Amino acid sequence: MSPASVRAGILIREWMEDAGLRTWVDSMGNLHGRVEGINASAQALLIGSHLDTVVDAGIFDGSLGIISAISALKVLKSNGKLGELKRPVEVIAFSDEEGVRFQSTFLGSAAVAGVLPVTALKISDKSGVTVQDALKGNSIDIAEESLLELKYDPASIWGYVELHIEQGPVLEWIGFPLGVVKGIAGQTRMKVTVRGSQGHAGTVPMSMRRDPMAAAAELIVLLESLCKHPREFLSDGGNYNEFTMESLSTSLVCTVGEISTWPSASNVIPSQVTFTVDLRAIDDVGREAALYELSNRMYQICDRRSVSCSIERKHDANAVICDPELSSQLKSAAYTALNGMIAEVQDEVPVLMSGAGHDAMALSYLTKVGMLFVRCRGGISHSPEEHVSDDDVWTAGLALLAFLETRV
Amino acid sequence: MSPASVRAGILIREWMEDAGLRTWVDSMGNLHGRVEGINASAQALLIGSHLDTVVDAGIFDGSLGIISAISALKVLKSNGKLGELKRPVEVIAFSDEEGVRFQSTFLGSAAVAGVLPVTALKISDKSGVTVQDALKGNSIDIAEESLLELKYDPASIWGYVELHIEQGPVLEWIGFPLGVVKGIAGQTRMKVTVRGSQGHAGTVPMSMRRDPMAAAAELIVLLESLCKHPREFLSDGGNYNEFTMESLSTSLVCTVGEISTWPSASNVIPSQVTFTVDLRAIDDVGREAALYELSNRMYQICDRRSVSCSIERKHDANAVICDPELSSQLKSAAYTALNGMIAEVQDEVPVLMSGAGHDAMALSYLTKVGMLFVRCRGGISHSPEEHVSDDDVWTAGLALLAFLETRV
Repeated sequence: MSPASVRAGILIREWMEDAGLRTWVDSMGNLHGRVEGINASAQALLIGSHLDTVVDAGIFDGSLGIISAISALKVLKSNGKLGELKRPVEVIAFSDEEGVRFQSTFLGSAAVAGVLPVTALKISDKSGVTVQDALKGNSIDIAEESLLELKYDPASIWGYVELHIEQGPVLEWIGFPLGVVKGIAGQTRMKVTVRGSQGHAGTVPMSMRRDPMAAAAELIVLLESLCKHPREFLSDGGNYNEFTMESLSTSLVCTVGEISTWPSASNVIPSQVTFTVDLRAIDDVGREAALYELSNRMYQICDRRSVSCSIERKHDANAVICDPELSSQLKSAAYTALNGMIAEVQDEVPVLMSGAGHDAMALSYLTKVGMLFVRCRGGISHSPEEHVSDDDVWTAGLALLAFLETRV
Repeated sequence: MSPASVRAGILIREWMEDAGLRTWVDSMGNLHGRVEGINASAQALLIGSHLDTVVDAGIFDGSLGIISAISALKVLKSNGKLGELKRPVEVIAFSDEEGVRFQSTFLGSAAVAGVLPVTALKISDKSGVTVQDALKGNSIDIAEESLLELKYDPASIWGYVELHIEQGPVLEWIGFPLGVVKGIAGQTRMKVTVRGSQGHAGTVPMSMRRDPMAAAAELIVLLESLCKHPREFLSDGGNYNEFTMESLSTSLVCTVGEISTWPSASNVIPSQVTFTVDLRAIDDVGREAALYELSNRMYQICDRRSVSCSIERKHDANAVICDPELSSQLKSAAYTALNGMIAEVQDEVPVLMSGAGHDAMALSYLTKVGMLFVRCRGGISHSPEEHVSDDDVWTAGLALLAFLETRV
């Protein structure tokens, strides 16, 4: 809902209309473009992503998904096939996915999925402007009652497809322009606080220290080892099945992004060190197992060092598994698109986990979801450096076209 | 030179005069109290420490050394022995040791030792007031030329003795009120910067990361291990003699007090982590050996992890070794004092390293130095919690008295 995304919305709406879609903006600011096909009462396919992006970031991100969908539908229109679609197709450009302004993600898609609490309208940005105010500033009036009306009837929807830039380095590393997303990782965010004994950096012998910084360093080394080699850490009890072990081995990631000491002076042994842990995995059982094992070992390290350790879980989000049938259809479509771009495709279209959140997470509450990822240069996203090659943009559009032609 | 230390100075000057000392304040704000004894032209014994302390800190710190010296001289005066001293005794309360206001330590003692550069007068505090201005505000005029005149003639000085609170936990742990200081540790301060590859916490698989936070954690774990067990890390080449190995084993301490990540967001793999290292040891050769070994191993870790690592040395200070004869005399005096307090002292007076800096470091440029430490509750200093028991204050005073009675 920034001025830039409003301007982009106006442009995208023109493109939608140019592609033969009926358009409207709903009371959460989501832009819709719909074609009914031969049976307006059939369950609709939704294709969506978001137009907003983070500050100073690249232009691809979610908007690539919107533009590819519109382009594919425009090809169908040019070929006179738009009216032959077996079910309605609705492209939705969601209004606020990133949560940059209101620090709350998926505002637009959660409203459509019916999982946005009415309290969300009262969330305010840094200058005190609420979501409701911001919508009003763009001539959109929303009351709490009308928010509930935004929810789509699940019986009217066939499925949801989203195409998004990968935001990671995997497709580039494999050397493939497209990948099918098997699911969106579940996430746990924690704050770890280690408390020890503050002291003068010169006067406390090493053997008498209870240094929370050295303890925190050992905890972070453990965290990395466990997330790199979960089998070695979880296999002891034999409590976890092969599916969990395999999915952890291929999907578990963990990150310490913030750390601070107190009192933070170079010549003082800190009394306290605090750091964040962001841990994600595609399998929720596996994520809980990793967290359990991690916490146990962290407390053991803290006990051995006679420092106190508190691990607070600040945020949990369960994983979303993409629909296997929809994924398999998207995989075939991606393969067809690749064959259109490259003479002979030898390898199978890769299947990836999404470590980042997407509108598909919200839509999964409404219907089955499927996602395609597009290769991203250097894995860099949310940055002006973000780049997708022209060929890969073409391939993405062709994949959605192939999907529409064969499955809808 | 804070208002509190000026007020303390006025009180201490009265006590000095009450103990029969001739007093004056020099042009760096140092307070002197002197008694000539039977031979005014003999080499003088200086006994000193500082009156200033860190903000919101305890009252013992350096002032305990001044008060004990005055008390001991007052006992001699009461017993009519002040005039029998074989050499002049001069108590000096140095003006600015901690460096809190001007971020430059030992201003007072360095001037007396002749090692304070004239540029020090122009150092300004946070509000832009220079050392020279601050002295002027206390009715002390100092010009650059007069600073040079403050230096004592080494030929006129016999030695320097300082009594100070330990500021560490060793004496408390051993269960002894006093200890003799064998030397003041040399110190190296470093800034370590680790640069890796920034990324999304969810989208970069563990195997593809170049995470500077995980690397920094491994470096800090290494640092702690090396400083705890220097023999295991330095014995490989057999390059270091037993004296160095032994002195490192008993004196090496290292501390990471500050750490920060960039961009410092919980869901972003940092691109850069910076942390400080404070490393101290009583043996300069050993300290260099530890630094060499540490740097080599740090670079190896960074190479293996494909992150870049820069280690900047920001500050180096060589160790000061206390004079063995003076130390042995102080040890005997401490033993005498303890026998005066406790029926039968079984153990030898302990010998410690000082990890903190003291005015004795500056005075070592002028004359031989010796130091006594007083037990400090919980090893806590530079804090309102700082505490020395009444009995230990008594013992400290008795030790200086015994030293004056038998050696001067």
